[in-house]
Amino acid sequence: MKRYLFILLFLCLQVRAEDGYKLWMSYSKIEDPKTLNFYKPRLQAIVWEDKDLEVAVEEVKLAIPKLLGITPKKGGKNGLILKVNPHINITNPEGYKVSVSGQSITIEAPRSVGVLYGVFHLLRCIQTGQEPAGEFSPKIQHRMLNHWDNNNGTIERGYAGMSLWKWYELPERLDPRYKDYARANASLGINATVINNVNASARFLSSEYLVKVKALADVFRPYGIKVYLSVNFASPRILGKLPDADPLKPEVQKWWKEKADEIYSLIPDFGGFLVKANSEGEPGPMDYGRTHVDGANMLAKALKPHGGMVFWRAFVYAPDPKGDRFKAAYEEFKPYDGQFDDNVIIQVKNGPIDFMPREPISPLFTAMEKTPLAMEFQVTQEYLGWATHWVYLASMFEECLKTDTRVKNRKTTLSEILQGKTFGYRHTAITGVANTGSDRNWTGHPMGQANWYALGRLAWDPDLGAKEIAQEWISQTLSRDSKTGSDIQSMMLSTREIYVNYTSPFGLHHVMGEGHHFGPEPWVEKAPRPDWTALYYHKADEKGIGFDRTNTGSNALAQYPKEFSAPFSSLETCPEEFLLWFHHVPWDRKLKNGDIFWEAFVKKFYQGVKEVEGLQRDWEKVKGKVPQETFENVSARLKTQHKEAIWWRDACVLYFQTFSKKALPAGLKAPERTLEEVKKIVDVYHIR
Amino acid sequence: MKRYLFILLFLCLQVRAEDGYKLWMSYSKIEDPKTLNFYKPRLQAIVWEDKDLEVAVEEVKLAIPKLLGITPKKGGKNGLILKVNPHINITNPEGYKVSVSGQSITIEAPRSVGVLYGVFHLLRCIQTGQEPAGEFSPKIQHRMLNHWDNNNGTIERGYAGMSLWKWYELPERLDPRYKDYARANASLGINATVINNVNASARFLSSEYLVKVKALADVFRPYGIKVYLSVNFASPRILGKLPDADPLKPEVQKWWKEKADEIYSLIPDFGGFLVKANSEGEPGPMDYGRTHVDGANMLAKALKPHGGMVFWRAFVYAPDPKGDRFKAAYEEFKPYDGQFDDNVIIQVKNGPIDFMPREPISPLFTAMEKTPLAMEFQVTQEYLGWATHWVYLASMFEECLKTDTRVKNRKTTLSEILQGKTFGYRHTAITGVANTGSDRNWTGHPMGQANWYALGRLAWDPDLGAKEIAQEWISQTLSRDSKTGSDIQSMMLSTREIYVNYTSPFGLHHVMGEGHHFGPEPWVEKAPRPDWTALYYHKADEKGIGFDRTNTGSNALAQYPKEFSAPFSSLETCPEEFLLWFHHVPWDRKLKNGDIFWEAFVKKFYQGVKEVEGLQRDWEKVKGKVPQETFENVSARLKTQHKEAIWWRDACVLYFQTFSKKALPAGLKAPERTLEEVKKIVDVYHIR
Repeated sequence: MKRYLFILLFLCLQVRAEDGYKLWMSYSKIEDPKTLNFYKPRLQAIVWEDKDLEVAVEEVKLAIPKLLGITPKKGGKNGLILKVNPHINITNPEGYKVSVSGQSITIEAPRSVGVLYGVFHLLRCIQTGQEPAGEFSPKIQHRMLNHWDNNNGTIERGYAGMSLWKWYELPERLDPRYKDYARANASLGINATVINNVNASARFLSSEYLVKVKALADVFRPYGIKVYLSVNFASPRILGKLPDADPLKPEVQKWWKEKADEIYSLIPDFGGFLVKANSEGEPGPMDYGRTHVDGANMLAKALKPHGGMVFWRAFVYAPDPKGDRFKAAYEEFKPYDGQFDDNVIIQVKNGPIDFMPREPISPLFTAMEKTPLAMEFQVTQEYLGWATHWVYLASMFEECLKTDTRVKNRKTTLSEILQGKTFGYRHTAITGVANTGSDRNWTGHPMGQANWYALGRLAWDPDLGAKEIAQEWISQTLSRDSKTGSDIQSMMLSTREIYVNYTSPFGLHHVMGEGHHFGPEPWVEKAPRPDWTALYYHKADEKGIGFDRTNTGSNALAQYPKEFSAPFSSLETCPEEFLLWFHHVPWDRKLKNGDIFWEAFVKKFYQGVKEVEGLQRDWEKVKGKVPQETFENVSARLKTQHKEAIWWRDACVLYFQTFSKKALPAGLKAPERTLEEVKKIVDVYHIR
Repeated sequence: MKRYLFILLFLCLQVRAEDGYKLWMSYSKIEDPKTLNFYKPRLQAIVWEDKDLEVAVEEVKLAIPKLLGITPKKGGKNGLILKVNPHINITNPEGYKVSVSGQSITIEAPRSVGVLYGVFHLLRCIQTGQEPAGEFSPKIQHRMLNHWDNNNGTIERGYAGMSLWKWYELPERLDPRYKDYARANASLGINATVINNVNASARFLSSEYLVKVKALADVFRPYGIKVYLSVNFASPRILGKLPDADPLKPEVQKWWKEKADEIYSLIPDFGGFLVKANSEGEPGPMDYGRTHVDGANMLAKALKPHGGMVFWRAFVYAPDPKGDRFKAAYEEFKPYDGQFDDNVIIQVKNGPIDFMPREPISPLFTAMEKTPLAMEFQVTQEYLGWATHWVYLASMFEECLKTDTRVKNRKTTLSEILQGKTFGYRHTAITGVANTGSDRNWTGHPMGQANWYALGRLAWDPDLGAKEIAQEWISQTLSRDSKTGSDIQSMMLSTREIYVNYTSPFGLHHVMGEGHHFGPEPWVEKAPRPDWTALYYHKADEKGIGFDRTNTGSNALAQYPKEFSAPFSSLETCPEEFLLWFHHVPWDRKLKNGDIFWEAFVKKFYQGVKEVEGLQRDWEKVKGKVPQETFENVSARLKTQHKEAIWWRDACVLYFQTFSKKALPAGLKAPERTLEEVKKIVDVYHIR
């Protein structure tokens, strides 16, 4: 019998530990004696009274037996004390305080969700070998995921299966996964989710669907997560059968007001609307000669009585072959600064183009002094290798958040601006376009889980570092062995620059496959829009490569504070990783290391491929030290990544060589295929 | 420690047993003493020598400890003896013999896959409390799944997530699920899989994708499963850059020949091609003035040297508003009988239209004497309630297979024809359009697993009954308690007729939502094609309803043997469940039970709804007797089914009442909504 039990136990652990479903909440057993000594005596009991603390208590009951091998009793004087205390003095109503005294740990917060956050903090501390104590408050109010999920279950730019939301089963069936989704987000402090694509179907606003949305909201509510909807601006026409959706028409305003009333009657804590208007063919107020302000404020007024918010996206650009898409958002939105209602946030992508592997910050963040801006990061790897390339995005998020904008001519990080410190924002928000899907492990690439994790942690505290977040995540997932942990951490921290090296060195951008955004296609000269080609961006010719955005070119740099743009404006002082963003760089320009640009450029692609090989070697070393299924999964994906890194290298080097007409740097082996052969690969992916 | 083990064991069993991933291969512990007494002594050891038996042995090693609580030793004289014996005398090379003697059970087969089938037979016997013995051979050669999976991961008419095949991970990463898919199929005897949609992308024939296909084939091979591809007939143009794909042009023939050579160099046991040509906009030989024979035989010649097959679909119909789609396949294919090459099979859907909840058999099955025909069933519930309605399809498959076609003016079941007995087919095949997807439980609806199971079992032996298959399946999944088992079996066997009652009584057909095929939309009068409307089929007017296919109408009945069609030809003798398939039935026509047609028709819809309520009540009774997660999952889906049954009832009754202009039968409560209100529901599902 005992032997049989062990077999089962073994099978059970195997199944449970390895498929990635449990994310950073697998709560595997703590081995460190110091941690056990500290926590075991203090977690023999759970003490609570408030009924709202049910999910927090449930999490403790799930986690502690697994982590510490003990089953906390209920009640008593000592142990884990959970308390909702509306009178507690704290920076943010969602914050919490943790204190340790004698045989007890007390988590206290003005709201039950704060206690839940405190519990997750405690569980994180147990797993990272830290002692919990202090006051913790989120630095950002709205910590949000954007799901680009369609009503047919597909996910735009999703690489991990179908939508998590099973629309045809809702509202009757609640997939158990909805709750695990909420737990995962709450564990990070994410408190808002936009459940449908910004290219929005009006279907979601129908009464038929709102009861489905309500069912999700009911699951998420105990975890402090508000539901938002992306809305189709033409809904009054599509659903309401009005002749149009002109925001200045009373009947249109009435339709939205009544729709808002209907939503709030079902979902009293509904978050609000996210809107992509007059962008990439989506309807918007400009269809009727109105403005973003007219559109956003109309929606804001419908939501206002209920406390709802409008997130209005600044991702807009006009298809002008001679223009500079870089400048579009600023040009369209800057004039409206100060004109938006007080429950409107303008949601801005981190860079001026579109989630490239490396972008300079969007100038809007430095320019909108009277309008709160939300940061939109992309967690799904649309331009960063989908779910087969290992890219730890926290490095990129951190680079962006820690950028010194020089606003007010002093050190002003973008993080500070987002926290509202610089311009006194009424609302603060950080959002991420989710990388989740119905794949068993949620994110396709096992290491993609770390990007969801990092987005959540940075939304709570944008001053955290990619390095510490990686360590936290590793301790809760792959290994608590310090050597293994630091090896994996080093790999993670290297991945983003490696990806940049073999796809977009020196600020090369927008040279990926047209439409699907898979693989390299720097030769794209025709697309449904001129600003969807590659040539629009890299402007390679026999002299050089890159987009001159200085005052001799599009002068996009003028949109930044002068103190920020100054170094970028000159070829001499421009940080080399941003060169092609701002300059048309001559092929034979000498760089700091003495190489001419062409040679340095080519070397980066080769370096990137070599670095992937290094990743492969380093990953082999953790074999046996991380769950086997994860090990194999990552190993296999690294093979794909290596194959595709060579593809990128060959495509870019061979293609740009047709302009530079220069030989490869000495010592580099020429690609084993011709440009024509490389071009054929991406052709396959254009076949419908 | 022991307590901790028990907790873990409990969690472990919960996780393992309930999410449905393991299908009918969860191998839960046998409790029946008689079964244990018989098998335990005989399964103390496994004896084998042949290396090809690795996967069969692996399955035994996985299953026996779970089923019987013993771990078989390797080798010895007694125990489970597995043998490949090429000289064994057996009906079919894929068959096997099982014999019991003393303390041994011997499974012997001419090929290793036969031994594997024998092992799965043994495991099924253990779980159904039977003793294994005898000779077992499949009655059908090609036992096949058709996956309508697209290259972007979506599944046409799929309701259980994304495609199982992760094209962007292949060939480097092999999802562990591929192997479990192969195991599940092998356990049923399925030996062929067409992995991509019949609306085929040429992409799959590119060299880039063929190595991915090869990777899948390598996983499936040990399980006796051959891979097939659906091919786009225009591939020589799309991929090969030829000016066209005219099958009579030598360069087109050469392209296909070389492509076949390329495929077989990668996949030596590649199965062949499935082709949807000149159907619903797909390219085909008729684009160049050629025929189905020209097209099919050209492909057949390319595959012939390698032993590959062409499955050429007869699902063709021309958009003629005055025509009868019923007759199209026969009219197009009958003239070619005898002209196809000997490695071509014509694949025919079970009915003449398109997988309706109840169809008469396709007349082609009775008419093609010199051409082997494959049966195409649909396992995914495109027209049968997607993944939210519980419909056990084996009832429908059985009804079809046991239909007495009266071919040769004697009792000739369709099953016999498919087995090749009637016309002496060179090849025999039964295929099913798969209902599998990436959902954790594979099929969305937990009870949908039984449909995959049944398709496989019937493809092996089309003379099996829905009832016995249900019992087998239940014993291996939900319960081995005989009362619970027979309760669930009764429910399963009732479900198909219930679905017919509330959606398509008396042979009503093609009245579902236009395009998406969701919910009722009997009022559809405009669609991209006239034969995609509902009015084309039901032809309701003030006199009556139904499509006259007798000699006063389209005379489609003339396509059947006279002895078969005779009873259908007269309103007096036509089986009532097929009335509207063949007659325009007056609303006030008296039926056998004395009701006029209108009243009987309406009563069926009401009855269907009541029956769903009955299912709900009956399902409640198995609470605690089946895995809890499955119980809740099915309960919730039954709620949805009930809601939608009422929707169907209200839609059809209110709409057809506008023609009959008659009151509802006494005692029936009128729908609580108006026709306009019901129409709005399906409108929502048309919003993009």
